[in-house]
Amino acid sequence: MLDTKPRADGKRVLADLNTLRAIGAYKTGVHKPTFSEPHKQSLEWLVQKLPDAGLSAAIDGIGNVFGTSAKSGPKLLAGSHLESQNYAGWLDGPLGVVYALEAARVLNADPALKGAVEVAAWCDEEGHFGHFLGSRSYVGQVTEADIDATRDRTSGRTMREALADMGLAGRPRVAAEPGRHVGYLEAHIEQGDALESGGLAIGVVTSIVGIWQYRINFTGEQNHAGTTRMAVRKDAGLALAKFCVAIDERFPAACGPRTVWTTGRIALDPGAPSIIPGGAEMLFQIRDDDPAVIARLEAVLRTMADEFSANGPCTVAVTKLRTGAPAMMNPSFQDAIEAASRALAGGRSVRMPSGAGHDAQMLATIMPAGMLFVPSIGGISHHWTEDTADADIVTGAEVFVDACRRILSG
Amino acid sequence: MLDTKPRADGKRVLADLNTLRAIGAYKTGVHKPTFSEPHKQSLEWLVQKLPDAGLSAAIDGIGNVFGTSAKSGPKLLAGSHLESQNYAGWLDGPLGVVYALEAARVLNADPALKGAVEVAAWCDEEGHFGHFLGSRSYVGQVTEADIDATRDRTSGRTMREALADMGLAGRPRVAAEPGRHVGYLEAHIEQGDALESGGLAIGVVTSIVGIWQYRINFTGEQNHAGTTRMAVRKDAGLALAKFCVAIDERFPAACGPRTVWTTGRIALDPGAPSIIPGGAEMLFQIRDDDPAVIARLEAVLRTMADEFSANGPCTVAVTKLRTGAPAMMNPSFQDAIEAASRALAGGRSVRMPSGAGHDAQMLATIMPAGMLFVPSIGGISHHWTEDTADADIVTGAEVFVDACRRILSG
Repeated sequence: MLDTKPRADGKRVLADLNTLRAIGAYKTGVHKPTFSEPHKQSLEWLVQKLPDAGLSAAIDGIGNVFGTSAKSGPKLLAGSHLESQNYAGWLDGPLGVVYALEAARVLNADPALKGAVEVAAWCDEEGHFGHFLGSRSYVGQVTEADIDATRDRTSGRTMREALADMGLAGRPRVAAEPGRHVGYLEAHIEQGDALESGGLAIGVVTSIVGIWQYRINFTGEQNHAGTTRMAVRKDAGLALAKFCVAIDERFPAACGPRTVWTTGRIALDPGAPSIIPGGAEMLFQIRDDDPAVIARLEAVLRTMADEFSANGPCTVAVTKLRTGAPAMMNPSFQDAIEAASRALAGGRSVRMPSGAGHDAQMLATIMPAGMLFVPSIGGISHHWTEDTADADIVTGAEVFVDACRRILSG
Repeated sequence: MLDTKPRADGKRVLADLNTLRAIGAYKTGVHKPTFSEPHKQSLEWLVQKLPDAGLSAAIDGIGNVFGTSAKSGPKLLAGSHLESQNYAGWLDGPLGVVYALEAARVLNADPALKGAVEVAAWCDEEGHFGHFLGSRSYVGQVTEADIDATRDRTSGRTMREALADMGLAGRPRVAAEPGRHVGYLEAHIEQGDALESGGLAIGVVTSIVGIWQYRINFTGEQNHAGTTRMAVRKDAGLALAKFCVAIDERFPAACGPRTVWTTGRIALDPGAPSIIPGGAEMLFQIRDDDPAVIARLEAVLRTMADEFSANGPCTVAVTKLRTGAPAMMNPSFQDAIEAASRALAGGRSVRMPSGAGHDAQMLATIMPAGMLFVPSIGGISHHWTEDTADADIVTGAEVFVDACRRILSG
């Protein structure tokens, strides 16, 4: 029998996304840091749009936008974020917000459906000031003292100044209302190439991986680059290079099928062309959704450090900076997304973990949560060339709206 | 027969060195950047001392101090520098200046000796503003435009501002007077451990090595550290680490007995913990006194870069930033130092190249030049722990003064 239920309006979704893309445009992407003028305009745009979905709109004291419904029945919370990384892509964040808006527009007006979709745009998911500040505030993990202490990592402007400039100073922050929502659903671009390379339309997120971060310090002996014989050098920079290569050689044997690890920053001390570095430091990160895998890799890392220190000429110290427990996505939400994909995307979906962090991992600490991915071209993200084919954006919207309907229908 | 010729006064030399050490003291070393207040005081101290050696003293328009003699007969120029690296040692520079001052005090007053020692303190040998600016100015390699363009690499203050603050603005710069000097002699701490480990007192410098400097750039693909599978990454930082290790493996087979090479600075782009670096850069330096060895090593470097680029996933580009021809020290000056060492240091000397750059390499472009090294404890330099035993300082002074006498006596 033909499915006659109202579905997402693809043209409207693409139009909204392109409207947001034009606010703070940079090349084919956007430059929309948290609390910048384009970010402010994007939040105001959303506030103007929410009433079309039968939602009353407000911005709270940390810059979260909420659209709340007076409709009876179960409420599903949906959303993402509107700010961007510096000079980054147009879909990372806005896609999930516009999908949520579209779901509310389609479903809240549907008399055949009990309940409603409520919309949230979480502030600073991209971490210009902190670490998921908006969604963490909503779940009760952010104190006023935390806000006092945060600054824009690029400009140095304090969050208090920024909130004042936004006209949000002194405004109360909205906290989650226990029992109000049956759960939270978020859509996002994959930020990887698994869907594209597999010819798939939908990623059904099973978990959001944890991030373990380490600072690894190498101590040698600073000396003159012209007068110190190679035989007697204790070059901390060379020790760091050898350690990076050793990780590359030894981790594959101990990692899981989807583990990733990255050395994102390296610094030599003193970092002068004519001085043998006496110290070197690297920031190293491991991501996986299985803590057992992480534990195994951390053991390899510490064993390597001990071996390096024992063999010399430099000593190696590993300091754990951050431990992120993975967030598991609700199984029945996963089933709902998969069913929607069967109905509207020819079942071209796969269950997969998210290697990136998302607000959903914060919401998952207080309610059932789910996530849906759409393909990203070449897997590129956090760069202005980030993009997704219009057809995939539309299919994703249709699946998202249908998944919301299925979750609300229980 | 007993040598009755006047010789260096060791107590006086140690007293002068400790006076200079007290100006801008930092721990057991000094912090005396070019044109800082302690540097200015040190120059003024020297200007006060030079008349004791029968020399008329002046500071020229680039901060060089000169002590000139009216005595008839041949003139030997001797000296070094008085500024230090930031938070560095007490002997790097002052030792050579005080030895020159002592040689002038002992020899210029000696009626039995024809000729005189003239003293120079060259400004900014340590390169806070440039690259041997004082000695290069004296040999005619610095233009007014060069000075206009120069800034303090730490503070950013322009050299013009600094010269004005020193009261030197508009003062003429002293240029070498052709034929005035039979040559130039400079003493310095070894800045290596060859003399100490060999139980030797004097290094007879045969040449000052050339420095070849390169920028090596690695280009990969910037991407998300959580979502990009290891298999598809193009990590420029990892490519750089592998390249450093490859240099360490392949250079020893192609280098000379005293070649040294150093990676002093590394930078990843963008250098964020959650982003796979799409670019990486290293500053790489090779030093040797044989251009043929350098040419061989540069060929190895470029071959490695081509291999890396061909094998992927990142491309490597090598750019030569600086080529420094080695400076040969005058053979009869070497003989004079060796003879002085036999007479006053039990012949505990060795001929060796200088791995570090010195003002003598600039003077060598216009007159015969020689250098003498004294041991440095642990080979440490460019660090506040730099030191030399008092007995070695005194022996070095005696040998230096005697070598000056031998050179002036032809």
